[in-house]
Amino acid sequence: MASGMMEFLPLWFSPSALRAYLAEFISTFLFMFATAGSAVSARMVTPDATSDASSLVTTAVAQAFALFVAVFIAADASGGHANPAVTFAFAIGGHIAVPTAVLYWVAQLLGATLACLVVHTLSAGQAVPTTRIAADMTGFGASVLEAMTTFMVVYTVHASCDPRVLRAGGRRGATETATGSLAVGLVTGACALATASLTGASMNPARSFGPAVVGEDFTNQAVYWAGPMAGAALAVLVHQHVVYPASSLADPEARRGSVETVVA
Amino acid sequence: MASGMMEFLPLWFSPSALRAYLAEFISTFLFMFATAGSAVSARMVTPDATSDASSLVTTAVAQAFALFVAVFIAADASGGHANPAVTFAFAIGGHIAVPTAVLYWVAQLLGATLACLVVHTLSAGQAVPTTRIAADMTGFGASVLEAMTTFMVVYTVHASCDPRVLRAGGRRGATETATGSLAVGLVTGACALATASLTGASMNPARSFGPAVVGEDFTNQAVYWAGPMAGAALAVLVHQHVVYPASSLADPEARRGSVETVVA
Amino acid sequence: MASGMMEFLPLWFSPSALRAYLAEFISTFLFMFATAGSAVSARMVTPDATSDASSLVTTAVAQAFALFVAVFIAADASGGHANPAVTFAFAIGGHIAVPTAVLYWVAQLLGATLACLVVHTLSAGQAVPTTRIAADMTGFGASVLEAMTTFMVVYTVHASCDPRVLRAGGRRGATETATGSLAVGLVTGACALATASLTGASMNPARSFGPAVVGEDFTNQAVYWAGPMAGAALAVLVHQHVVYPASSLADPEARRGSVETVVA
Amino acid sequence: MASGMMEFLPLWFSPSALRAYLAEFISTFLFMFATAGSAVSARMVTPDATSDASSLVTTAVAQAFALFVAVFIAADASGGHANPAVTFAFAIGGHIAVPTAVLYWVAQLLGATLACLVVHTLSAGQAVPTTRIAADMTGFGASVLEAMTTFMVVYTVHASCDPRVLRAGGRRGATETATGSLAVGLVTGACALATASLTGASMNPARSFGPAVVGEDFTNQAVYWAGPMAGAALAVLVHQHVVYPASSLADPEARRGSVETVVA
Repeated sequence: MASGMMEFLPLWFSPSALRAYLAEFISTFLFMFATAGSAVSARMVTPDATSDASSLVTTAVAQAFALFVAVFIAADASGGHANPAVTFAFAIGGHIAVPTAVLYWVAQLLGATLACLVVHTLSAGQAVPTTRIAADMTGFGASVLEAMTTFMVVYTVHASCDPRVLRAGGRRGATETATGSLAVGLVTGACALATASLTGASMNPARSFGPAVVGEDFTNQAVYWAGPMAGAALAVLVHQHVVYPASSLADPEARRGSVETVVA
Repeated sequence: MASGMMEFLPLWFSPSALRAYLAEFISTFLFMFATAGSAVSARMVTPDATSDASSLVTTAVAQAFALFVAVFIAADASGGHANPAVTFAFAIGGHIAVPTAVLYWVAQLLGATLACLVVHTLSAGQAVPTTRIAADMTGFGASVLEAMTTFMVVYTVHASCDPRVLRAGGRRGATETATGSLAVGLVTGACALATASLTGASMNPARSFGPAVVGEDFTNQAVYWAGPMAGAALAVLVHQHVVYPASSLADPEARRGSVETVVA
Repeated sequence: MASGMMEFLPLWFSPSALRAYLAEFISTFLFMFATAGSAVSARMVTPDATSDASSLVTTAVAQAFALFVAVFIAADASGGHANPAVTFAFAIGGHIAVPTAVLYWVAQLLGATLACLVVHTLSAGQAVPTTRIAADMTGFGASVLEAMTTFMVVYTVHASCDPRVLRAGGRRGATETATGSLAVGLVTGACALATASLTGASMNPARSFGPAVVGEDFTNQAVYWAGPMAGAALAVLVHQHVVYPASSLADPEARRGSVETVVA
Repeated sequence: MASGMMEFLPLWFSPSALRAYLAEFISTFLFMFATAGSAVSARMVTPDATSDASSLVTTAVAQAFALFVAVFIAADASGGHANPAVTFAFAIGGHIAVPTAVLYWVAQLLGATLACLVVHTLSAGQAVPTTRIAADMTGFGASVLEAMTTFMVVYTVHASCDPRVLRAGGRRGATETATGSLAVGLVTGACALATASLTGASMNPARSFGPAVVGEDFTNQAVYWAGPMAGAALAVLVHQHVVYPASSLADPEARRGSVETVVA
């Protein structure tokens, strides 16, 4: 196996691969910067921000807008994951090699951690909020919620690059990339509004890892890794093998069946 | 008739039909999860959330973003209804068979109910708010308001898949699906802001049914079924037979008439 | 002239023309319903809503989302104006005949007024807020502000259907219609946030006329007609004759000149 | 050199060049008007607006929506910069001649200043807030934050007009222009939410210059020029020479390498 790895090393560190890692680093940095910064900014103007619905909106909109752009600007270089759970899903589906996925993870975790460090340091020491589980909730309940929201995010990622919803060629042009990225950003914003008070709305291990490193508080990290990874795996399974199996691609007539919604 | 049903059974339970029901289940679940979750999250941070405009924004934005994505990710598998009133409209217009429509309804109601159950259970017992009619308002007034807002949603659904506004082929590509889904999501968000304090802004019987089941409170369910269904039927009538009748498709010159808005 | 009118009567009341008026009625109704409803809904949850920034967001987002959809769903039938000032601009530019424009106005004013009446009546008598000028401001200052914001809206309308920014044919497909409508909706939302506390952010005579009729308060109506109409006329002048004159269409090389922004 | 300038003078003041300057003036005016106006409007309804998260949302959403439209409506005439840092980036990259860039700057600074003057004067003397650095933060820290957020904006500008993410021809059609403009607007909104309480979230020297002129307060102008310019320069370097170098354009196979994300 070692010799196998040697053989592929040039591929993992080719110029295009290095560019992909850098694109993931930049995009995850952007997403985490907006997430952490907006939480800090909201708290600075509202000292009791944890009891204010407009702070929910502040951070959810920042996440939605930033993730849309993070996915969009990296799409051509790396696929625009910006989330270890998304990379995990593509690895499970066989669309990205495992060593590449691991290096994507490294880039993502570095980007998220550096973003939190920058916000913490340059804001003269403001604490970057970690994702937290609401009182009375169990770790298991939080994991299930994180799995469900990540399911929705990863399912949307897959739906937006499915050949069936794309134009003839099956490859995305700039517009499909943009609208798909928008869907990924906005579903994240919707889920952020839905679970912000329950689990902190992570849906992304890097988003929980960065603040934990900077705040030296790894409480419940397991929840924010196990939940999203399980949700991502389930999304691949359901999207690839149940709702949109490869066989359905071959026979569009059979696929549509009696369901016909274009208004005549 | 029984033998007729037997004949069609394979069609209603074909793999593509089952995939469509699952897609409707997932999309309605996503929409209801974001709607119920954001209401719970907003109330947890603002105990008196019913008297706070930022809670209005929280739930309306969550609904807008989630419905956009819900429609988008199911578009190719099921048409992306996520709303019994939309399915009703397509059944009236003859675009979906009645038995298929009934099974869509089952999937939508199951998805919405399960989403409310998940939010209620995993949040350690937070109550999922039901749609309510403002004091002083009559049930009839609420029904009319729900009919009007649902009219706008269903009219937008039809406009976004009308062959006239689509490219030559009359079929939607990925971009048309995305922009149409965005229009459906955002008109729902706009109407949610407009009627949240009056009727609870349902526009969707499944959105009222789920919280009612989980909260065991079926007050005014009739309003939230009759209103949206009437509005959906009216939207089909107006769109298909008045504003965009099939005859206008055949003769684009006659259709445009003296109205010409492309700036030369 | 009377005989001239007789000659054209069939054109003004052709089926396609009647459909255009109905489309304008529906779209202006939708826009006004969301605007008036969101103001009422925000005030119901926050009795002192006039001193709350989240109420600003509530009504601005409702207007932005609703206008996007209003323009989008009427685009093919009527051009999607939903605003007498936009119709005025197209009449000045020669893109719509004056009698047609007048009938568009009638449809728009009826739609806006009926929407306010519906919100007022069905909400059990809630007052629909009229557009108001801030204390200390003059009517002239308000007119200039309204002219400037309407300039931006009408300029955006023209830019989004300019042949130069469209694909080869010069006609908009569904995607160009959707993105152009989105631009019109969001610029209205931005200007609503900018001038809500100053002039009430009308940018649309119908939006000021409807609440005035229902509330029987025509204070400052002149401001909300003169300002937007002047701004619309200026936008046509600047767009059609200065920034994007027809001559520049003929010679794309000369037009671009030394300005080249596609990244190589 | 003087004779060289004489030679090019007709080019810098050709009709198409003058139209480009006017387009930049209008777009920067629109962006600054929405930014300044929304801050004034939010403060008028909430006298203690500096301690309210919904004011953050108000101004960030106004900036996001307005910048999207500002970039969109000027795209064909001038490239749609509306920001001296963006113009600087295109000058560094060799996509715009230095004298043209200087004249773009003049147009942008005039537009921003006039917008602030209009808001200040017509609102009966409301102060237009300048961008400010939070207490405890250093000017250097603020410069670095401004550089980072501007990096993200300028990188997004470049990504959205990169030939690789565009359709075959390499030129943007109306839809690519719209989605790219949306990305630029929303990343600005996300960064505005992230740094509003820290640096005032300028990312645009014109946005800091206008209020400074009208308020006669040039405190920290150096921060709001040095930071964004450094960030813009870095974005060009990273985008053009590291992540998307010209060499990668020639060989799409090499570029993609092992990274393949379209779901099969």
